Amino acid sequence: MTSVSTPPAFVAVDWGTSSFRGWLMSAKGEAIAESRGGEGMLHCVTSGFAPVLRHHLTRLGAPDGTPVLICGMAGARQGWREAPYLKTPTRLEALHEGAIRVDAPGDVRILPGIAQARADRPDVMRGEETQLLGVTEPDFTGLVCIPGTHSKWIRIEGGHVVEFSTYMTGELFSVISQHSILAHAIETDGSSQADSAPFREGLAAALAAPSGLSASLFRLRAAQLLGFEQRSDGAARLSGLLIGTEIADARHQYGVQALRLIGAGQLGRLYEAALKAQGFDVTVADAEEASRFGLTKAAINIWGTQF
Amino acid sequence: MTSVSTPPAFVAVDWGTSSFRGWLMSAKGEAIAESRGGEGMLHCVTSGFAPVLRHHLTRLGAPDGTPVLICGMAGARQGWREAPYLKTPTRLEALHEGAIRVDAPGDVRILPGIAQARADRPDVMRGEETQLLGVTEPDFTGLVCIPGTHSKWIRIEGGHVVEFSTYMTGELFSVISQHSILAHAIETDGSSQADSAPFREGLAAALAAPSGLSASLFRLRAAQLLGFEQRSDGAARLSGLLIGTEIADARHQYGVQALRLIGAGQLGRLYEAALKAQGFDVTVADAEEASRFGLTKAAINIWGTQF
Repeated sequence: MTSVSTPPAFVAVDWGTSSFRGWLMSAKGEAIAESRGGEGMLHCVTSGFAPVLRHHLTRLGAPDGTPVLICGMAGARQGWREAPYLKTPTRLEALHEGAIRVDAPGDVRILPGIAQARADRPDVMRGEETQLLGVTEPDFTGLVCIPGTHSKWIRIEGGHVVEFSTYMTGELFSVISQHSILAHAIETDGSSQADSAPFREGLAAALAAPSGLSASLFRLRAAQLLGFEQRSDGAARLSGLLIGTEIADARHQYGVQALRLIGAGQLGRLYEAALKAQGFDVTVADAEEASRFGLTKAAINIWGTQF
Repeated sequence: MTSVSTPPAFVAVDWGTSSFRGWLMSAKGEAIAESRGGEGMLHCVTSGFAPVLRHHLTRLGAPDGTPVLICGMAGARQGWREAPYLKTPTRLEALHEGAIRVDAPGDVRILPGIAQARADRPDVMRGEETQLLGVTEPDFTGLVCIPGTHSKWIRIEGGHVVEFSTYMTGELFSVISQHSILAHAIETDGSSQADSAPFREGLAAALAAPSGLSASLFRLRAAQLLGFEQRSDGAARLSGLLIGTEIADARHQYGVQALRLIGAGQLGRLYEAALKAQGFDVTVADAEEASRFGLTKAAINIWGTQF
């Protein structure tokens, strides 16, 4: 990927709980090289963060002294160095002002997360704020949905993060399908297609009765015992139930409106189909591109366009 | 407990997924002796059911030829011998007509479970139907709630089971507190007191926004990260959230009315407080007594009052 026409300007890093993704970036925001691995925060707590970063800088071929900008869990209290949360409401364009420098050779900084420090609706994010910066214009008003292990719904007004909610959708899928009685009713290698009947039926059931998730889960098992459904339908139905419950609550919370969906893969397609069917005006963005764009915007704010 | 004034009439057995509970009963429905163990259905699939029953009959001192009546998972397809489900609507007083005899010395019968064989609301029970028989009069009309791993809500009209719903409340508590990120936010040895503030707050949050369980779960963790709550509050709050979500959905489904609550222990007290606060007219029954009463009623229907 290296090219003489695009000199490296900085290194962008998305450092999550269980993964490291780094890119050597040009000043124009193009990825010149990429290096990824499983050395997430949980790994680095024992191995140390500095050696992992050094290893990836070498793999990226980053010239000595290239500045590094990091987002994600490396800035958590239990990470490399805590980058204290900005508090809602907070302007995305000011994210870089909360960056902290770590004790390492060169200029290495970690962007802060965002906290909703309200006793009635406490919530936190680390990493998603950078994706939000990446997919929104400075005066953006609207909703953003970031599906995943911990799905986020974020309301943005005039470029400020005003309010957000985290749904444990992906994690519930994982623990229920692996550790509950539904393990007998789900083939975990079953793919959940957006156009499959069990997915659509699970979605419809959840949207019609969003308070009934816990009963719907048992019905998934009972339907198989009584011969109405098959085990091969289980994963798609569970996926529909959980995503439908999330969308029903978020719709109740934030209303139906223009929405940017960050996530272009299989999961993104499931959400896109479900959200469009509910009347949302959906624009899809790729999650890694969103991180890189956000890190580039923040890098320009820190080091200037010339770096 | 043995007494010469109350001759043994039959043996009552509640044979669950993971436990065996047997009682030597008098014709008056008094328990003369008790024998319990961990040899539930899962254990007996490999050990065999007949030897386990023989062992407990000996411990109970049951005279040779004493008839045995069993309810619960021993009658499941993967149990000793399948006792096919009765289908809703079904009369509780006719439960004994669905009993099947197993291939064992003496007269040993297993009561059937009840299925709601509707494609839109499939559901099943095995064991609870016997408790329902135990706590209701032949013409009973009203609601019954049986809290537990898989909580049941049952609507009964004129002694017929008309409709029911199963909530995975207890199992969700277990898998979420052990296998999700909330494991960091919950002390599993923490007791959930009915009068504790975190339980009441979780209950109130769930009743106010019953579609938001998945977001409320993440907030439990975020509240601790942001210093609003402590880890020692986690179990009570999770318990409140899950029980509140169950009650909110059941209230929506069945309406507020006279309710028999089967469960007199710690969990029963949590439900009793929550249900009374929501306007239900609650009568509490002990779960084991309910099983014994139901088995005795069915035994009298099978063998007559003289046995």
